[in-house]
Amino acid sequence: MHTLGEIAKLVNAELVGDGELKITSLASIDCAKSNQLSYVVSEKYQEQLSSTQASAVIISKSLQKYCNTSAIIVEDVYLAFAQITHLFKPKVIHISGIHASADTHNATIAPNCCIGKNTTLGINTIIGANTIIEDNSSIGDNCIIGSNVSILQGSTIGNNTVIESGAVIGSEGFGNARDKHKHWHSIAHLGNVIIGDRVNIGANTTIDRGTLEDTHIHQGVRLDNLVHIAHNVIIGEDTAIAACTGIAGSTQIGKRCMIGGMVGVVGHLSICDDVIVNAKSTIDKNITVAGMYTGIMPLMPHKKWQIIGVWLTKLDKITQYLNIKLSHLKGK
Amino acid sequence: MHTLGEIAKLVNAELVGDGELKITSLASIDCAKSNQLSYVVSEKYQEQLSSTQASAVIISKSLQKYCNTSAIIVEDVYLAFAQITHLFKPKVIHISGIHASADTHNATIAPNCCIGKNTTLGINTIIGANTIIEDNSSIGDNCIIGSNVSILQGSTIGNNTVIESGAVIGSEGFGNARDKHKHWHSIAHLGNVIIGDRVNIGANTTIDRGTLEDTHIHQGVRLDNLVHIAHNVIIGEDTAIAACTGIAGSTQIGKRCMIGGMVGVVGHLSICDDVIVNAKSTIDKNITVAGMYTGIMPLMPHKKWQIIGVWLTKLDKITQYLNIKLSHLKGK
Amino acid sequence: MHTLGEIAKLVNAELVGDGELKITSLASIDCAKSNQLSYVVSEKYQEQLSSTQASAVIISKSLQKYCNTSAIIVEDVYLAFAQITHLFKPKVIHISGIHASADTHNATIAPNCCIGKNTTLGINTIIGANTIIEDNSSIGDNCIIGSNVSILQGSTIGNNTVIESGAVIGSEGFGNARDKHKHWHSIAHLGNVIIGDRVNIGANTTIDRGTLEDTHIHQGVRLDNLVHIAHNVIIGEDTAIAACTGIAGSTQIGKRCMIGGMVGVVGHLSICDDVIVNAKSTIDKNITVAGMYTGIMPLMPHKKWQIIGVWLTKLDKITQYLNIKLSHLKGK
Repeated sequence: MHTLGEIAKLVNAELVGDGELKITSLASIDCAKSNQLSYVVSEKYQEQLSSTQASAVIISKSLQKYCNTSAIIVEDVYLAFAQITHLFKPKVIHISGIHASADTHNATIAPNCCIGKNTTLGINTIIGANTIIEDNSSIGDNCIIGSNVSILQGSTIGNNTVIESGAVIGSEGFGNARDKHKHWHSIAHLGNVIIGDRVNIGANTTIDRGTLEDTHIHQGVRLDNLVHIAHNVIIGEDTAIAACTGIAGSTQIGKRCMIGGMVGVVGHLSICDDVIVNAKSTIDKNITVAGMYTGIMPLMPHKKWQIIGVWLTKLDKITQYLNIKLSHLKGK
Repeated sequence: MHTLGEIAKLVNAELVGDGELKITSLASIDCAKSNQLSYVVSEKYQEQLSSTQASAVIISKSLQKYCNTSAIIVEDVYLAFAQITHLFKPKVIHISGIHASADTHNATIAPNCCIGKNTTLGINTIIGANTIIEDNSSIGDNCIIGSNVSILQGSTIGNNTVIESGAVIGSEGFGNARDKHKHWHSIAHLGNVIIGDRVNIGANTTIDRGTLEDTHIHQGVRLDNLVHIAHNVIIGEDTAIAACTGIAGSTQIGKRCMIGGMVGVVGHLSICDDVIVNAKSTIDKNITVAGMYTGIMPLMPHKKWQIIGVWLTKLDKITQYLNIKLSHLKGK
Repeated sequence: MHTLGEIAKLVNAELVGDGELKITSLASIDCAKSNQLSYVVSEKYQEQLSSTQASAVIISKSLQKYCNTSAIIVEDVYLAFAQITHLFKPKVIHISGIHASADTHNATIAPNCCIGKNTTLGINTIIGANTIIEDNSSIGDNCIIGSNVSILQGSTIGNNTVIESGAVIGSEGFGNARDKHKHWHSIAHLGNVIIGDRVNIGANTTIDRGTLEDTHIHQGVRLDNLVHIAHNVIIGEDTAIAACTGIAGSTQIGKRCMIGGMVGVVGHLSICDDVIVNAKSTIDKNITVAGMYTGIMPLMPHKKWQIIGVWLTKLDKITQYLNIKLSHLKGK
């Protein structure tokens, strides 16, 4: 908990309203409630700003006219937000073995594990050797957690879930604000990771925690090895994702999808239910119709590709020439 | 060991034959021997079914006419197989330090390692800190195993082999059967990982164990960091695979191949000896002729790619127009 | 330290010059100084060979005429170099907890860590559980190192740097020499990893040490999860690289670049400052002009791609037909 005055001071901001206001946490403009601080980066969100339940917001001078709450006025809102997140990041204290407050008596824990405070492990759950489970995490019944796994603070894992060796759950998201010197300032990610029942997570797979809300892997999901799930991603029930695939931040994937190996999915997309994407494809736009999708360059003898590759970069010239004639085709 | 009757009961199957029959393990239809249980998913394998040495098979009603052994009759063979595999998965008990039955006195073992029962470590072998070697694994002479490595049960590693930090050897394969509710049921992978002499395995690389037979990395192979080798893959002698490449399940790669970084190889393929594949390519069909192969989209200024990309998706229209004229060219 | 005579004997070389010459270390032909051994693989480097400050060089017979120093004459220079590197690789001795010579009293160290000799940890630095920091490493002030991290010998890390769980810093580079039987011989990588101030490194990311010189991540860099940085790579200040991207050996990336996720960058390239590369692209040539670049195949419904893909592999035939007509276009 920090006062709004302390927070304003941290980022050298102009304070509008009550400096003694207690801020318990940060939240997005839509979700924020009393005693929460939010932020708005552009005019696009002026309606949400006017009607927010947040007790205070971080805004630029130009947005002040839409604001009905206390405010922290700064030049670069996103940068100030990034700096403020660090105030609210809980500290973790690692202890050897099992913290006194942890409820683990129904689980089997291998040697050299560190189990944090207020942690709960369900019945018949097995934790592999040299695995870390940080504070305020909860793992359900009948789970199998491998060796050398890192389950970071505040993670929630359902029943009958398997996490293979080397996986990292709850790492920091890749969110950074750039200042005018083009230096990056990390956002401290305050959301958690929530993993449902009957989920399998492969070896050395990484799942980042959310920025303010949570990253969410729904029940029945299968993730293969070396998969990357970024902050605030939502993976729908019974979706399977093969090895080496990466899903960028805030993307939502529907139910029962099958995503092949080494597929790249860019951020802030929405993929509907029952989509199949073949290995190595790139998903760079929303998918709104179920079905099978592909986008790869076929393999060729290298000598042939040397020719093809050159023509690919001149496809605009080829098509420029054909353009008029093609317009006839389109008319058919 | 389980009786056929117990197994049939687990999957609510009709039992044909001797319920007291002792089943010691599972095997594929071609390899199965006495006291082993196998499975056949389609008519395609009717000859193997008729001539199998397995003592019993999991089949659907429609295949019963080809079957000369005891049988478990189910609606969904692959799903029943997936469920049955879990009966045969050995349990691992982690102990702190070195199990009494392990033969490790010629090796150097760093702190915080867990070395399982019936494990053998060769002469001059060095095990890095916080590394796990599970039961029934064997590591040859002069090996160097890094820190935070997980070598899971039943792994066999030859002489003079190096495994870098964070690698996972013997993780579960990504094999799942889907039930009629589209829920996934994991297959417990019962095969192992066999790694030959003089192999190097990079940091955070993952190698999955086989389903029933083994995943096999032959002698002299080089794997870079963050490589994914799926279940039942076979990598031939002296093949080198650069970082971030993934090989999907059951693919076989020949000898002396050089596979570039971030190449994706889809499953169930066969790549012959002496193949070179350039970085970032996708191998989606068998390669039967040695040589160099490529398949990538060239990099362009983004503005140019925005034009090229659109034309790529209309290449069928361009070629439709040219089709007749091209048929003349082909005649040349 | 080894004598030139010992070294010559190891690789069955002809020795030219003083066998009692003390060789303290290896260095590249340009950087080598007194008491260092270097190597030259081709006539291309004859000038550097003639003017080198190295006390001795590994060369083939044909290069002897350009050589003014002691020499080790071998058939395959690169192979001999690979074999000799292993003589100079320092041994690491893992101890439980903190080595007596380590300066760590201003840092907080979680359980089950191994901290090597001559290691320095700065003020307020936090080391997560089960993390390994090998000999002769140095970590600055206010750093946060996650759990299950491996920081291997000789790594230097600046102030205010964050390394997420599971990362591996200083793994061996993927450099191998092939003998006439097509067997690979690893090069022992003798360079280190240097990481600047205010760097963030994601979960399960791997950074290889340099061959003779160092791999260098400059201040302010952001690396996401599961990124691979190969030996001798240099990443300029304030560059950000998203998840699953791989940078091959000896490539240099400029300042303030933004490289998207799952981008592949081939080796020995130079990317200038202020370059943006979109996710999934392949960088296979130098980039000398700042700006945004892309190179991916667009995603399509699979049925459409089946047609497009075939035409892509025949693009040479299409363009062959259009070639004459295109030459007119180019004239415009």
